[in-house]
Amino acid sequence: MQDFVFYNKTKVYFGKNQLDNLGTEISRFGKKVLLVYGGGSIKKIGLYDKVMSQLEKAGMTVFELPGVEPNPHHTTVNKGAAICRKENVDVLLAVGGGSTIDATKGIAAAAKYDGDDVWDLVTRKASVTETLPIVTVLTLAATGSEMDGGCVISNVDTNEKFGYFGPDNHPDVSFLNPENTYSVSAYQTASGSADIMSHIFDVAYFSKQDEMDMLLRIQEEVLKTVVKFAPVAVKKPDDYEARANLMWASSWALNDFLYEGYSQATVCHAMEHELSAFYDITHGHGLAILTPRWLSYVLDEETAPRIRRFGVNVMGIDASLSEMEGAKEAIKALEKFFFETLGLQSRLSDLGIDDRNFAVMAKKACFGGVLHGFTDLTPDDVEKIFRMCL
Amino acid sequence: MQDFVFYNKTKVYFGKNQLDNLGTEISRFGKKVLLVYGGGSIKKIGLYDKVMSQLEKAGMTVFELPGVEPNPHHTTVNKGAAICRKENVDVLLAVGGGSTIDATKGIAAAAKYDGDDVWDLVTRKASVTETLPIVTVLTLAATGSEMDGGCVISNVDTNEKFGYFGPDNHPDVSFLNPENTYSVSAYQTASGSADIMSHIFDVAYFSKQDEMDMLLRIQEEVLKTVVKFAPVAVKKPDDYEARANLMWASSWALNDFLYEGYSQATVCHAMEHELSAFYDITHGHGLAILTPRWLSYVLDEETAPRIRRFGVNVMGIDASLSEMEGAKEAIKALEKFFFETLGLQSRLSDLGIDDRNFAVMAKKACFGGVLHGFTDLTPDDVEKIFRMCL
Repeated sequence: MQDFVFYNKTKVYFGKNQLDNLGTEISRFGKKVLLVYGGGSIKKIGLYDKVMSQLEKAGMTVFELPGVEPNPHHTTVNKGAAICRKENVDVLLAVGGGSTIDATKGIAAAAKYDGDDVWDLVTRKASVTETLPIVTVLTLAATGSEMDGGCVISNVDTNEKFGYFGPDNHPDVSFLNPENTYSVSAYQTASGSADIMSHIFDVAYFSKQDEMDMLLRIQEEVLKTVVKFAPVAVKKPDDYEARANLMWASSWALNDFLYEGYSQATVCHAMEHELSAFYDITHGHGLAILTPRWLSYVLDEETAPRIRRFGVNVMGIDASLSEMEGAKEAIKALEKFFFETLGLQSRLSDLGIDDRNFAVMAKKACFGGVLHGFTDLTPDDVEKIFRMCL
Repeated sequence: MQDFVFYNKTKVYFGKNQLDNLGTEISRFGKKVLLVYGGGSIKKIGLYDKVMSQLEKAGMTVFELPGVEPNPHHTTVNKGAAICRKENVDVLLAVGGGSTIDATKGIAAAAKYDGDDVWDLVTRKASVTETLPIVTVLTLAATGSEMDGGCVISNVDTNEKFGYFGPDNHPDVSFLNPENTYSVSAYQTASGSADIMSHIFDVAYFSKQDEMDMLLRIQEEVLKTVVKFAPVAVKKPDDYEARANLMWASSWALNDFLYEGYSQATVCHAMEHELSAFYDITHGHGLAILTPRWLSYVLDEETAPRIRRFGVNVMGIDASLSEMEGAKEAIKALEKFFFETLGLQSRLSDLGIDDRNFAVMAKKACFGGVLHGFTDLTPDDVEKIFRMCL
């Protein structure tokens, strides 16, 4: 069992009637705020007006950065940072899903950086020394960015997508109202749910490490939460119980509690980042396509017991099956869940992706080396897994 | 489902080799530290020397308050606060179990209070406005005080024992090394384990509220962690895996995550505080004696399903039993666990307690009214439960 440090400073307001606290919380950090959001869905659901009304009541001066892309671009981050420097912004407010929050984390660091390109920070050419405070209002249960310290930024010029963890990059305050996810489409709900599950699979559950028993079983309960409530939310988008469970599962699937002491490559995330860097697909959908094929590829005597345990404890497969048969059934059950129950397309070819870039993507996914995880993967292995997904 | 706020600022260093970080962490708060500890067991296990060596390396000036009692006295807290005021102490360091940490939280508030008696703060005659920073080194898995905002202080002059939650009373940093609990006796390990379980029972699990499914099932996993590892630690005190799981279960059983949105009287804790206020018994042992009798007393058509669910999901009883039969079996299984597996004495009379104070204790337990919880309890109900424990 590894030693670890747990620290999570994010204060979460969860529930239906919490946005009244936004003004008080945000004005703790100053009077000038940069409001960051995406394609405008927050205007359609009336959230933009509610947020602006709170900011106005609190006497805030508001600057805006709309149009953050899914898989947010480093150029957008640079634009936000330039506004912050020019206007002496005190605090950032992200209203949206993981992409908006990730872009905001990038801005928080870039605004305090002497250079003018956040890509220097993402690629570790320069270090993050200071960040602006961050408040978020979440609209999608998926990435966990609302309560964790990481973010992922894309460079469309170079087809690169990198995660980075700055010091103190957790949001200071996050507002989680499940009602704000009622308008999320069945497709995005399904993809977000795959993302939540993949965080647990990738960072911790499918691992060879010596683990703390309590955490392993709590990981299974969070996974079961998604398996239970994602289909409900897909069918009945305004089911509060389903949306609430998914939203809180999203935060706890990546806020460090479940991962204490783990240190391994997040294999499916590394592979998926190449897919969405090259093809700009929805991150969670890419993960759903990759995960069962990855598990099939790495299935052997050593990995079978954990995969079978997942099948029995999370997917409810027959507990009397042998290790190997149970593991195979577990993978089938996961495929059925993603591609039938949640209705996600199952193949990369469904998304118009062919194999022309697989070799270079596989090499990049391994960062020029080998991915150390549940089993170690070389670029050759990764390319084979990509092919299994075609 | 209730709205809630989650915020927990405690930074936790968990594991075998973390104490080297003590100097850096503690000197962030200043140069003068008050070291608070209990009866001296920390000297026997060599922890005192290790801590002092770290403080010395960090150039700290150390004042000491030894001799904190189990069920810490308000007079001891006042003594600590007086040292802080006289010596302009910057930061408090608690090395011990829940009593030592609770006393330290009292000192943190009392040191910044204009009056000279912490009892004014505990009884809400005066408000806590500011507190000293707190660092802890934990030596007992039980109370969860290492990662929560509450503390319980006793007044031996008036036979009163009250919990209080100051603003920002969470420790700033806590060091959790499971090896520091190897020397904890079988009796204290068993009592501490009952305390961990009772936090979950009392604050959340045995409740009528509309709950979040994910949290309910995670509560069960933390309970199962105790059921699995407490007997191991009782028999093999230096089993790292068992001690680590119990220690982390202790922190998460009371750090707010499992309790979001709950608001009910912590019935067994209210009753037990009277027992230990009048008879100075070990808190966790009192809870173990009370809990199954309380469950038997409140068992009816309405409470049976949750009690049976506990039996099936946590204690492993036969899932085919009816609600009422299952609930009865669940209570029997819990009694067997506390009084046979963990070896705790099962009756108040075993601890030399008779019924002479029950009427006044019952009235005090209800704070002059009714305890609203799983079922509402009047002083008359509480007195009957005390009698069931004789």
